Amino acid sequence: MFEQTDPNQIQLTEEGELKHFITTEGLSRELLTEILDTADSFVDMSAKQVKKVPLLRGKTVVNLFFEASTRTLSTFELAAKRLSADVLNLNISTSSTSKGETLKDTLMTLHAMHSDMFVVRHSSSGAAHFIAEHVTPDVAVINAGDGRHAHPTQAMLDMLTIRQAKGDFAPLTVAIVGDILHSRVARSQIHALRTLGVNEIRVIAPNTLLPRNIETLGVKVFTNMQEGIKDVDVVMMLRLQKERMNTALLPSESEFYKLYGLTMDKLRLAKPDAVVMHPGPINRGVEIASSVADGDRSLILDQVTNGIAVRMAVMSMSMSGQMKSRGNEL
Amino acid sequence: MFEQTDPNQIQLTEEGELKHFITTEGLSRELLTEILDTADSFVDMSAKQVKKVPLLRGKTVVNLFFEASTRTLSTFELAAKRLSADVLNLNISTSSTSKGETLKDTLMTLHAMHSDMFVVRHSSSGAAHFIAEHVTPDVAVINAGDGRHAHPTQAMLDMLTIRQAKGDFAPLTVAIVGDILHSRVARSQIHALRTLGVNEIRVIAPNTLLPRNIETLGVKVFTNMQEGIKDVDVVMMLRLQKERMNTALLPSESEFYKLYGLTMDKLRLAKPDAVVMHPGPINRGVEIASSVADGDRSLILDQVTNGIAVRMAVMSMSMSGQMKSRGNEL
Amino acid sequence: MFEQTDPNQIQLTEEGELKHFITTEGLSRELLTEILDTADSFVDMSAKQVKKVPLLRGKTVVNLFFEASTRTLSTFELAAKRLSADVLNLNISTSSTSKGETLKDTLMTLHAMHSDMFVVRHSSSGAAHFIAEHVTPDVAVINAGDGRHAHPTQAMLDMLTIRQAKGDFAPLTVAIVGDILHSRVARSQIHALRTLGVNEIRVIAPNTLLPRNIETLGVKVFTNMQEGIKDVDVVMMLRLQKERMNTALLPSESEFYKLYGLTMDKLRLAKPDAVVMHPGPINRGVEIASSVADGDRSLILDQVTNGIAVRMAVMSMSMSGQMKSRGNEL
Repeated sequence: MFEQTDPNQIQLTEEGELKHFITTEGLSRELLTEILDTADSFVDMSAKQVKKVPLLRGKTVVNLFFEASTRTLSTFELAAKRLSADVLNLNISTSSTSKGETLKDTLMTLHAMHSDMFVVRHSSSGAAHFIAEHVTPDVAVINAGDGRHAHPTQAMLDMLTIRQAKGDFAPLTVAIVGDILHSRVARSQIHALRTLGVNEIRVIAPNTLLPRNIETLGVKVFTNMQEGIKDVDVVMMLRLQKERMNTALLPSESEFYKLYGLTMDKLRLAKPDAVVMHPGPINRGVEIASSVADGDRSLILDQVTNGIAVRMAVMSMSMSGQMKSRGNEL
Repeated sequence: MFEQTDPNQIQLTEEGELKHFITTEGLSRELLTEILDTADSFVDMSAKQVKKVPLLRGKTVVNLFFEASTRTLSTFELAAKRLSADVLNLNISTSSTSKGETLKDTLMTLHAMHSDMFVVRHSSSGAAHFIAEHVTPDVAVINAGDGRHAHPTQAMLDMLTIRQAKGDFAPLTVAIVGDILHSRVARSQIHALRTLGVNEIRVIAPNTLLPRNIETLGVKVFTNMQEGIKDVDVVMMLRLQKERMNTALLPSESEFYKLYGLTMDKLRLAKPDAVVMHPGPINRGVEIASSVADGDRSLILDQVTNGIAVRMAVMSMSMSGQMKSRGNEL
Repeated sequence: MFEQTDPNQIQLTEEGELKHFITTEGLSRELLTEILDTADSFVDMSAKQVKKVPLLRGKTVVNLFFEASTRTLSTFELAAKRLSADVLNLNISTSSTSKGETLKDTLMTLHAMHSDMFVVRHSSSGAAHFIAEHVTPDVAVINAGDGRHAHPTQAMLDMLTIRQAKGDFAPLTVAIVGDILHSRVARSQIHALRTLGVNEIRVIAPNTLLPRNIETLGVKVFTNMQEGIKDVDVVMMLRLQKERMNTALLPSESEFYKLYGLTMDKLRLAKPDAVVMHPGPINRGVEIASSVADGDRSLILDQVTNGIAVRMAVMSMSMSGQMKSRGNEL
């Protein structure tokens, strides 16, 4: 829906610091590593029962959800509150648009209220990018998922989870399994994994759930799960995005589970110390067996914990970059 | 729906301190008195315009309402904010369950976000107990009403209101009037009143609104209001729970009012200094006459004020017990 | 719906300080100027990146919206949070009234929870006045719009915007254009403009959108836009309140735009340095051309910024007056 220009002209300050967080695409390894290090520091603080920090005290964070997502909204709301920000939740579909206000007018109004950060969830690819570029460049924009395009905080929490489990990205073979076509996460994951330098990225899916030309992103494609999962270090399952599918093309749940569902049998083909991830919410018995989801190889709940820390990291880093680019230090 | 084990194995630490607040049943007189004393200290502070204390600063309280209740939600939200907690309100029926996530997955996800307390409202008896026992024992669980089973914070605010009005529980005769069968409050009240040592507990209701074997709880049963209310010190009216009734068995409102509605005429049969209570919201002209509800014997608004104080008390005490059982002091 | 007594017997303390903010009608020039000066100080602080002040720390502000308005609610919510208050948002139409509770019971319950301020939005004229007079006089009541009657914070943010642009009210000619009949803003604006001493107030509208006897408020009436806008200093457009109109009498949007819509052509008839205002949300191409709304004469976004500051001002002033009248200093 929205046109794209180079996101890094938009999401970085002249000094190369983050001032929006729109996409993992094009960000340097140094910057991704800085996000992971910052997030790790929040994880460490939480372990010492220090969850609340004053980094965004007095700042106003507006959660602009044009598409409902309780789970994602909750993580951003909690992250903002633990940074001591004032938080305003707006479900835009049910509010001002019913009075005929345009999206741009809504955003400019929130800008005029001295909002400091927009966390944007939208069903159209490029929405967060468009807002940061054309509407409110001096409000830090955090992409909380835009259409099929990107979900960069999800990708970064996955990277943090992998780094915690495996230490070094370089030797890893990582498989992304399932509905690649409709996933806003897969694309963000692939960009982050490549930048962080994993050895090999595989995508495993039926042809009907693979985007065209996915190979151009530098991944190996498998339509056979048993072949694709062989000897991998990390298995990243995706959620079946039923709500984004043309139902005529939808594989039946039982058929999908048989071929691509992660069971203990299939997991045995991966490396003995392979770990399992899933962005949640889980469809048990569709993408993953409960024995795997709840087993000792599963990092699914670590992902949730890391999700708060990563969001705190990109929110505080983006705000800091924004303040500097406005001529103020945070 | 959920099985029951001894709640005190669950809601108390090894040292006998509160770490969840699931039910008044089985709690000692000392512990109930500690709750009342703590709540009284919050009442005293409020009277001095000190409403906000930092006891839960940096803690995350999640209001998990599987059943809508604006009034109860508001009291817990205010209590948590006055304890300086970060608060997240989740109306679960309309959120993640629509994506097919199981209740347990939702709870484990919130746990992984480092939630410190769940305030749980659920239509199924035993839900809060189940969560505290089987799902997230290291998150303080506060029961905000579960099915017909219990509503322990309501019972404790009633006890506080009685103690403020009457001083000592020992000489009191207390009548609970109305829809005992569908009330989650009555059961909690009876347990608390017995433990605190009142002289006599009466329940007054038509046979169709009495649970079977209610006598085994140590109460005297009256189906005639005039007989039951005679010489009591405290009249606790219940709300007609129309939404939980089989409409075929529903007494008509005017019939109920005539027989059991608390009018000035009926109130004259109680002691001259008898006080009147009602958990709200009031059905005027159904359970109670406006002249009684708004009269000088009514403690209905004191109950509301005490509701905040009691919730602050059980929230801070449970969090303290949780922190100790996790090896951290609050 | 509600009867009216002199609002200043209600909204002022004995010393003449604000303790509720119900209407601009009858308030002195000194008091309106104090509101503007206080708001200006918040604008200045914001410009220095100091948005949050502790004036309402520990106070509980309840946004009581009996009529949905995301935009107005957001400004009050932000204003309250920037004053460090605890905020409770209640959409009353969908909550306790469904349990049959009366409005008065709801308010008395919130009062008993030690609420300090009610921000009231209601479709009935006089609702805020009624609450402040008859229900909860010791809770500061802020009128956030009542029926067709008043929207005094909107009027005061308009006054602040005019003063920032023009400095002095005395020499100004101000035109209010559009749906005067259904506007809760126009009436509040006219009272404030008169009290602040502008030279001339004009209202411009078709006869069908003019209240009877509007001249008695001391305004000049024009049904011809070109005549009315001639040589004015300030053009205040109103929003077409379609939701309050009898659709049979509704002018077509294109017809309204042709006759009364503010275009560059019509704006040229005003003074060369005339400024343009609109309370938002804008109906582009109905009341106003985009070229005007987005042009350099438009103060529409300044109005939004000032809206936060004015609300912080009346909230902190009213709370201060309330505390004094209760015998406590803020």
